[in-house]
Amino acid sequence: MNYSIVRYILGHILIVEGILMLLPCATAVAYVEREGLAYLLAACLCLLFGFAMRMRKPKNSVFYLKEGCVATALSWIFLSFFGALPFWFTREIPSLTDALFETVSGFTTTGASILSDVEALSHCSLFWRSFTHWIGGMGVLVFLLAIIPLSGGSHINLMRAESPGPSVGKLVPKARYTARILYLIYFVMTIVEFLLLLLGKMPVFDALATSFGTAGTGGFGIKNDSMMSYSPYIQWVVTVFMILFGVNFNAYYFILFRQIKKAFHIEEVRCYFIIIFLSTLIIFVNILPLYHNAFDSLTHAAFQVGSIITTTGFSTADFDLWPQTSRTVLVLLMFIGACAGSTGGGIKVSRLVILAKTLVKELNSYIHPRSIKKIKMDAKPIEHDVVRSTNVYFLTYMLLFAASVFAISFEGKDLITNFTAVAATFNNIGPGLEMVGPTQNFGHFTPFTKYLLMLDMLAGRLELFPLLILFHPAIWKDLLSRRFFRKK
Amino acid sequence: MNYSIVRYILGHILIVEGILMLLPCATAVAYVEREGLAYLLAACLCLLFGFAMRMRKPKNSVFYLKEGCVATALSWIFLSFFGALPFWFTREIPSLTDALFETVSGFTTTGASILSDVEALSHCSLFWRSFTHWIGGMGVLVFLLAIIPLSGGSHINLMRAESPGPSVGKLVPKARYTARILYLIYFVMTIVEFLLLLLGKMPVFDALATSFGTAGTGGFGIKNDSMMSYSPYIQWVVTVFMILFGVNFNAYYFILFRQIKKAFHIEEVRCYFIIIFLSTLIIFVNILPLYHNAFDSLTHAAFQVGSIITTTGFSTADFDLWPQTSRTVLVLLMFIGACAGSTGGGIKVSRLVILAKTLVKELNSYIHPRSIKKIKMDAKPIEHDVVRSTNVYFLTYMLLFAASVFAISFEGKDLITNFTAVAATFNNIGPGLEMVGPTQNFGHFTPFTKYLLMLDMLAGRLELFPLLILFHPAIWKDLLSRRFFRKK
Repeated sequence: MNYSIVRYILGHILIVEGILMLLPCATAVAYVEREGLAYLLAACLCLLFGFAMRMRKPKNSVFYLKEGCVATALSWIFLSFFGALPFWFTREIPSLTDALFETVSGFTTTGASILSDVEALSHCSLFWRSFTHWIGGMGVLVFLLAIIPLSGGSHINLMRAESPGPSVGKLVPKARYTARILYLIYFVMTIVEFLLLLLGKMPVFDALATSFGTAGTGGFGIKNDSMMSYSPYIQWVVTVFMILFGVNFNAYYFILFRQIKKAFHIEEVRCYFIIIFLSTLIIFVNILPLYHNAFDSLTHAAFQVGSIITTTGFSTADFDLWPQTSRTVLVLLMFIGACAGSTGGGIKVSRLVILAKTLVKELNSYIHPRSIKKIKMDAKPIEHDVVRSTNVYFLTYMLLFAASVFAISFEGKDLITNFTAVAATFNNIGPGLEMVGPTQNFGHFTPFTKYLLMLDMLAGRLELFPLLILFHPAIWKDLLSRRFFRKK
Repeated sequence: MNYSIVRYILGHILIVEGILMLLPCATAVAYVEREGLAYLLAACLCLLFGFAMRMRKPKNSVFYLKEGCVATALSWIFLSFFGALPFWFTREIPSLTDALFETVSGFTTTGASILSDVEALSHCSLFWRSFTHWIGGMGVLVFLLAIIPLSGGSHINLMRAESPGPSVGKLVPKARYTARILYLIYFVMTIVEFLLLLLGKMPVFDALATSFGTAGTGGFGIKNDSMMSYSPYIQWVVTVFMILFGVNFNAYYFILFRQIKKAFHIEEVRCYFIIIFLSTLIIFVNILPLYHNAFDSLTHAAFQVGSIITTTGFSTADFDLWPQTSRTVLVLLMFIGACAGSTGGGIKVSRLVILAKTLVKELNSYIHPRSIKKIKMDAKPIEHDVVRSTNVYFLTYMLLFAASVFAISFEGKDLITNFTAVAATFNNIGPGLEMVGPTQNFGHFTPFTKYLLMLDMLAGRLELFPLLILFHPAIWKDLLSRRFFRKK
């Protein structure tokens, strides 16, 4: 285990975070808020620790998948810890656990909040809260990759550890180049949304925060009622962009390089749009009697479907009060999630497509036991290893999910709250149903549950294994034995 | 596709059912009930159709896995259809859908009922209802195997299609011999329970019906309050036997052949008992304040844990009113299920053990990417194919589960009812929570949902694929083309 390279990367991450924290400082200056000092202090701490950790260059700069995973998991934990400090310093969130929850929720693009009154926050804190979504959306390490040099295949190991889904990083042999293009697409799309929101007469600050929340498929709003009080135009812009940010970025990559036909033939993207269309249709019909108006029903149905499937978590209506059919559809959408290679969470459409094809293949094997057909995706056969790892992912996902529901049950809250609280955090959505519904928050949980849900958020965002690896004894054995038996 | 052998086996099955129906006839004679005539009529129909279908011997008696699956799935459907006739003839269940639901629930050892007043049934109907559990518990085809001769490897294909879990049939090379031993164990254990219940001063009829329900891990009671009004002694006997019938029958096989040490070293059985112990402990502590009495709490906790994990479904208390922690634990137990090679349903402990080990192996592969250690069970390495099919089973299970919850959601009932109704039928348990709780029944669902739940019960009992195969076009294409183009 190459600990020094991990330390080195963490140092880098903290420096980046320190620099990024100057943005909320600037916001504070613009709005003349003294809370800005807390951000300045936190930024200094980040830079201090960052430079200290980066001081000694690692002797050996090559690292393997396990170092990639550990670096990734620890990066997100460090980011969250330092990112939580300003909330705590300003006393806007008096409990450190709550501040951590809010920041983990931000970076993991979950959007689950412990705050009951968001509007009481200062502008700089609101900015930072939404900005964490934007940082987390594309992955901090992908960002790092775009700017720092690492030797040989190390980039791939880092990227494999963080990237959502199995497809990113195969576009272009050079991971650094890919990372830059992905960030460019991300950046441009955010700006386009921002401009469209301004066109709808949204205040600049609101438009910026909303764009960050949409781009990262995060879900922190800056209003207590999320997106309920905005105009239908704004709601539709957000709907469209949530859905766009949930599309596999490969599609945009193809479009960018004028391979438009290829972009429209990605099987995952097609399934994704079919699911959105059907779910919206079902919910639209189901809630029509509630709103007496086809346009309103369609707006709400499309918004909520887009918000849940892309795991964003904004809301224009209290869907907890919707009829049971709509509620069930939304709960199922929570698990489906967005496309791989997007900023969204969940199981991911491509995984489900592979799983469904595995099922069909198994069924065929009962008819033709000796057939050895491979599963195909986008007309190309999928490697056995991808199918296997998708299966393992799914099973790990389900076991962790069940374990979380079990652990949270000791709170004594009702089943739907428990179930959807885990679903909403594990899939990085934000709101669930009942006591964690869109008009509620996560503040009422015990600290134990809050830490558990933080782990769920991180596990969901990092696609399980990079976080789980932290609990593997081999990672720590090495460190402990080195520390205590160094002289031997 | 060898249709004639399938027809031949179905004929056999119907004859067996016809003969078995003479038992409720005898019950009717003993209690002087005219409902017995309905059973006599149904028995005649079974025999008539059975002999007609068996009349022409198939030219080719060898058959493959697909014929095994189709024969199995159709057998269970035929059994259920003819088994439902008496309920309908006697007008004790006026709707044919309801009668079918009740019988499918019986044969699949689910125990979900549409009746609100069980005690209004005649003795012969009560007998038949509980007896279907006993028939279904060990598998009708295993029974058939024990008595009819089939050529070569055909036994294995039939057994593989029906047996719960991957382990049965490997005990002894000769499947017929194994089948007989398994039935013997089943028979003896049922009698022992019957005698112990008689010792507790349970009426003979009650003891018989309860033994059938326990042995098949079914759950149809003959009282409206299930087992609530019986003495603690009786409740404990049932608890112990439910748990015993949920143990992998391999263990008894080993004990029978004096390999006691081997029996106690089966990993699955150990895990099974550990899960039971821990769940009972948690629920015991959780419901203690409710009953003010350690003995009562322990009785109820152990009974309900045993009843749910073995997928029996008897109840001594309305666990729907228990605190949320207990409810959550019970819902999780619903999915775990009993051991493979037992009469219980669910995912099965051995599968979960394999899945958990797959997860750990994956985690290790992040640390040692080149390791090629195999997963072990009972100190022996598991074949890759077993791991793969376990994975596929799990994923198919989850996808079907989600699809069922989705389809049932159009009823507009609450999420917990929907979720647990599917869980309770798919895992062959019986009662769920809320509107399908232990004091409720399934009568309030629409016919569409009832048929859906019947499919779930059959899919769960037949371990998914044998039922799913019926929906494969290849099975029917052959039949249709043969029928319409015979002359070509």
